[in-house]
Amino acid sequence: MKKRRTSKAISIGDVTVGGGATIVVQSMTKTKTADVAATVAQINELADYGCELARVAVPNAEAAAALPAIKKGISIPLIADIHFDYRLALAALEAGIDGLRLNPGNIGETEKVKKVALAAKERGVPIRIGVNAGSLPGDLNPRHSVARRMVEAAMRQIRLLESLDFDLIKLSLKAFDVPTTIDAYRRIARMTDYPLHIGITEAGTPRAGIIRSAVGIGNLLYMGIGDTIRVSLTAHPREEVVAAYEILKSLNLRQRGPVLVSCPACSRADVDIVSLAQAVETKLARVDKAITVAVMGCAVNGPGEAKEADIGIACGRGTAVLFRKGRKIGVVEEKDFISVLMREVEGF
Amino acid sequence: MKKRRTSKAISIGDVTVGGGATIVVQSMTKTKTADVAATVAQINELADYGCELARVAVPNAEAAAALPAIKKGISIPLIADIHFDYRLALAALEAGIDGLRLNPGNIGETEKVKKVALAAKERGVPIRIGVNAGSLPGDLNPRHSVARRMVEAAMRQIRLLESLDFDLIKLSLKAFDVPTTIDAYRRIARMTDYPLHIGITEAGTPRAGIIRSAVGIGNLLYMGIGDTIRVSLTAHPREEVVAAYEILKSLNLRQRGPVLVSCPACSRADVDIVSLAQAVETKLARVDKAITVAVMGCAVNGPGEAKEADIGIACGRGTAVLFRKGRKIGVVEEKDFISVLMREVEGF
Repeated sequence: MKKRRTSKAISIGDVTVGGGATIVVQSMTKTKTADVAATVAQINELADYGCELARVAVPNAEAAAALPAIKKGISIPLIADIHFDYRLALAALEAGIDGLRLNPGNIGETEKVKKVALAAKERGVPIRIGVNAGSLPGDLNPRHSVARRMVEAAMRQIRLLESLDFDLIKLSLKAFDVPTTIDAYRRIARMTDYPLHIGITEAGTPRAGIIRSAVGIGNLLYMGIGDTIRVSLTAHPREEVVAAYEILKSLNLRQRGPVLVSCPACSRADVDIVSLAQAVETKLARVDKAITVAVMGCAVNGPGEAKEADIGIACGRGTAVLFRKGRKIGVVEEKDFISVLMREVEGF
Repeated sequence: MKKRRTSKAISIGDVTVGGGATIVVQSMTKTKTADVAATVAQINELADYGCELARVAVPNAEAAAALPAIKKGISIPLIADIHFDYRLALAALEAGIDGLRLNPGNIGETEKVKKVALAAKERGVPIRIGVNAGSLPGDLNPRHSVARRMVEAAMRQIRLLESLDFDLIKLSLKAFDVPTTIDAYRRIARMTDYPLHIGITEAGTPRAGIIRSAVGIGNLLYMGIGDTIRVSLTAHPREEVVAAYEILKSLNLRQRGPVLVSCPACSRADVDIVSLAQAVETKLARVDKAITVAVMGCAVNGPGEAKEADIGIACGRGTAVLFRKGRKIGVVEEKDFISVLMREVEGF
């Protein structure tokens, strides 16, 4: 795994992105932003799941008007997502938001971007230049690859902001196509040291969307690229946050809650491992310590994996060997598998 | 994305693995192998989902005795997974299986492996040397990293098989830890040109297991490594096959059925995109052709993404613009979104 790319640090409210800070998990609300109660409730639920930055779309004046009240109801920094109308960005800044996301493809004239940048600078609010393959500026060379045009769109905005002496910049270059997205981020990572927000856009419903996101984000993270991640799913945003943590956990980049190691089950298992693992997973959902628990079905890899875990059982016929931190600490009857395992987890 | 590593081709029944062949999807049954009816039914279901190689555990003589009848009931090649007892490998070969998987950590003496290799060679049956981090031979240098010891275990068996003039070899080096797995495969990929079976072992229940597998397998495939994949999940094996295809589709390595592009939905959408995308996904599950369908919630990236798809709708308030192959072909009323989209998909 590559050493993490060196990036500048920016602060979005009290959350640092880049500069070697922990990789930050963010998501976006799916409520109507103008509906303050619903939006505050959704952001607070996301925060409970570990979301560290919340973004809301600000498509109109009513949404902008709701921002001060939303800010009051939540405890994580708030980012406003703006398209087309730069005046909404100015209103969001006025309302006290902590970060802005602008799409270079649809804000329009330089003068408008300038106005927003100056107002953001005054308040020390970072701007994410959020390039999206689906909305690239029309005047880029169509013979260049999509990834290259995404980079060109980003660089154009970077130069504009830099010319205004504005450098509280974060970048994203997202496409639905995973290799295109990876290519775009690899290119921009070599060209600038701004922190990168990574993700796959319009990744779809959870079934395929989680996989597309894990492959895309997982490749970038393995390359050392990425300071904050958002998994985009056509689903409740809590699914995005859970998936983001699973991606980070799979590469040992963050810990959050238990990790369950369980074998796929096969003809060798004398226990119904699928049901057992599901039952343990359900119990573990209420545990919030970072602990590795192994539920293994047979003698082949069971003892080996169970030993590596903090707590593990390797099941045989009617009994299982219980391990704690690599040491065998007992033999358990099948009827007690779950209760003993959970007692050990509680006491760990 | 890296060019695919050059590997030797082997044949498992009528399926070619390596040598530039299409990356093969495989899975493993979770029935008792001795239960012929259940095992045959599960393999045939897996084949319907696109599984191209089926593996069964052969933990005892009854399982070995069931193999000829299983072979008769299925149409995809059959691989026997053997641990501890080399005589079961001999029995499986006798029974006409198409491939063998042996774990170097637990077959024991060289003489036993030799007997199996000679019998396999006689029948032209390939052997997978399936190294697993949870069951490494005990005499490897414990100061070497797990990945390095996995490679050493594999190389030891390779040399033994090669000394018997046996080269119908496939390799796997799986761990639960994703970076360890990637490291092991990268090392072995440089050292031999045998085809590689890739996967993350004991990846867990679907929620986390799919993500661990997508990150691990997705990184290896992006590096050009991998000739056949198995996603290991503590779940029905059809979930493994579906996930395997989604990983391959995300990197444009295989096509199978429709790809659904859908936006995550946000305050900008005037339609309930989550419900709409789910309804379209359900309808598409019955469609067999490789087609990209986009369901987009607003005017920001909607038209751009919808245009890139084979068929797409970009929803507005009460109506959507319908695209076919990048051309706008009409405007659709909200009540007709699903029916019109599906009519276009059918006719594509």
